[in-house]
Amino acid sequence: MSDEFHYQRRVEFCETDAAGIAHFSTYFQYMEQAEHAFLRQLGTSVHAQDESGTISWPRVSAHCDYAGPVKFEDVLDIRVRIERLGTKSVTYTFDFRLEESIVATGKLTAVCCRITRDNPPESMPIPSWLVARMQPFVVADA
Amino acid sequence: MSDEFHYQRRVEFCETDAAGIAHFSTYFQYMEQAEHAFLRQLGTSVHAQDESGTISWPRVSAHCDYAGPVKFEDVLDIRVRIERLGTKSVTYTFDFRLEESIVATGKLTAVCCRITRDNPPESMPIPSWLVARMQPFVVADA
Amino acid sequence: MSDEFHYQRRVEFCETDAAGIAHFSTYFQYMEQAEHAFLRQLGTSVHAQDESGTISWPRVSAHCDYAGPVKFEDVLDIRVRIERLGTKSVTYTFDFRLEESIVATGKLTAVCCRITRDNPPESMPIPSWLVARMQPFVVADA
Amino acid sequence: MSDEFHYQRRVEFCETDAAGIAHFSTYFQYMEQAEHAFLRQLGTSVHAQDESGTISWPRVSAHCDYAGPVKFEDVLDIRVRIERLGTKSVTYTFDFRLEESIVATGKLTAVCCRITRDNPPESMPIPSWLVARMQPFVVADA
Repeated sequence: MSDEFHYQRRVEFCETDAAGIAHFSTYFQYMEQAEHAFLRQLGTSVHAQDESGTISWPRVSAHCDYAGPVKFEDVLDIRVRIERLGTKSVTYTFDFRLEESIVATGKLTAVCCRITRDNPPESMPIPSWLVARMQPFVVADA
Repeated sequence: MSDEFHYQRRVEFCETDAAGIAHFSTYFQYMEQAEHAFLRQLGTSVHAQDESGTISWPRVSAHCDYAGPVKFEDVLDIRVRIERLGTKSVTYTFDFRLEESIVATGKLTAVCCRITRDNPPESMPIPSWLVARMQPFVVADA
Repeated sequence: MSDEFHYQRRVEFCETDAAGIAHFSTYFQYMEQAEHAFLRQLGTSVHAQDESGTISWPRVSAHCDYAGPVKFEDVLDIRVRIERLGTKSVTYTFDFRLEESIVATGKLTAVCCRITRDNPPESMPIPSWLVARMQPFVVADA
Repeated sequence: MSDEFHYQRRVEFCETDAAGIAHFSTYFQYMEQAEHAFLRQLGTSVHAQDESGTISWPRVSAHCDYAGPVKFEDVLDIRVRIERLGTKSVTYTFDFRLEESIVATGKLTAVCCRITRDNPPESMPIPSWLVARMQPFVVADA
């Protein structure tokens, strides 16, 4: 049984559109905010500093399936789990729940990278201490 | 050989993030803006009125693969094609090019729906005149 | 001595720009989110229903002065007060604090309006029960 | 008689809100996009490089008055002029027109700054070649 991280998020007015619902692009911002809250709970940040400089997590792919609309002031419960924990990358899955219904599911793959000032990001192994903290959130049967 | 629709889009400053590049969620806004420009060229709108009321296109799924970063004031060429034209839904594919490089590819599936005031959207067949205009943009070998 | 409402807001990554700081337009979204949280605390919503339909608060003007930058993951304390409580409109002021420094101050004027489906918003007196709840937040010497 | 710069901008769907109109914070993004297009026309960029490094334009204040709503697919004409051209700062004014009506007016004050990697932005005189190009856009009777 894997651990779960939950992130609560109220739909803000500026995130709705003229159809009266949260715009579909907003779910990707919610996923990222849930990921960042998850990383903070693990004791790090999406832009962490270590002795060699900055580590960050550029995105490789992002996906969302929409099951139903959400409205202004709805409070979403976003469950974060890890579908795949690779040597250099992590794939998160997200379930968006409104009360008891799943209204969307999402997926985000990010690569652990060394960020330097004058070069493109270079992929690197996820630090072992962080792997150890992420491991419990890997979905058992994914 | 299928037709192609191209949409040019300059990366605006407010769309960049502290990593110095366009935020990954922005690509979904670009896809939608390209879709809307495409629908305008076909002579309709994403919120069209007919004699029975409003037709719109709620999203079922959205996906993006990122191949490289784009920066403020880069001008993207977004190629829009149709991967699948169903009876009630359409799946668009998008290639994002910066100069000659593909920097991202995306996909968006939307369902043709009748929108009424007090009921949820109800899926309906895409009007035949619109199917006829969309048909040339269906990718031959998709 | 007037009452104060405080709203805490973490700067999210998608709200930063390539200058590495929260984009200046984001402060207007923060003001609105603080206003909406304030209205919820007063027992109403920015889109409230009464027996005659919907009441909402279209904006007449918005202003922000910037004193210093804020960064990703900074947690702002936003103090909400009322500078002027008119018969049909309210002017809020906002102080944005990061730790002990004021990093920005803002102002938002909104008009109480009856919203109906097929007509433009029509201004109306703020309901007396809401005036009573807003009154303590009016700045004494504004 | 001063020169004018005009910037056309279509209201995109993701910029509307559940009230069916462009969100009030969006106008600040439009102002900035008009400013950036204006600077491009003058032969520079909001982030320009010179022999000493980067010049940019942090915001000191922003203001907007709203006269009427705008909707999805409305095409705004934004007139950019300079209300005040100081030694180190510039105050732009913006008129937002929809067909013949003014729907909003805005104002943005930005300070010319030297940007270096490890220090806060430092204000500097606007380069003389740029002052010369901005001068014709200063409103005569402002």
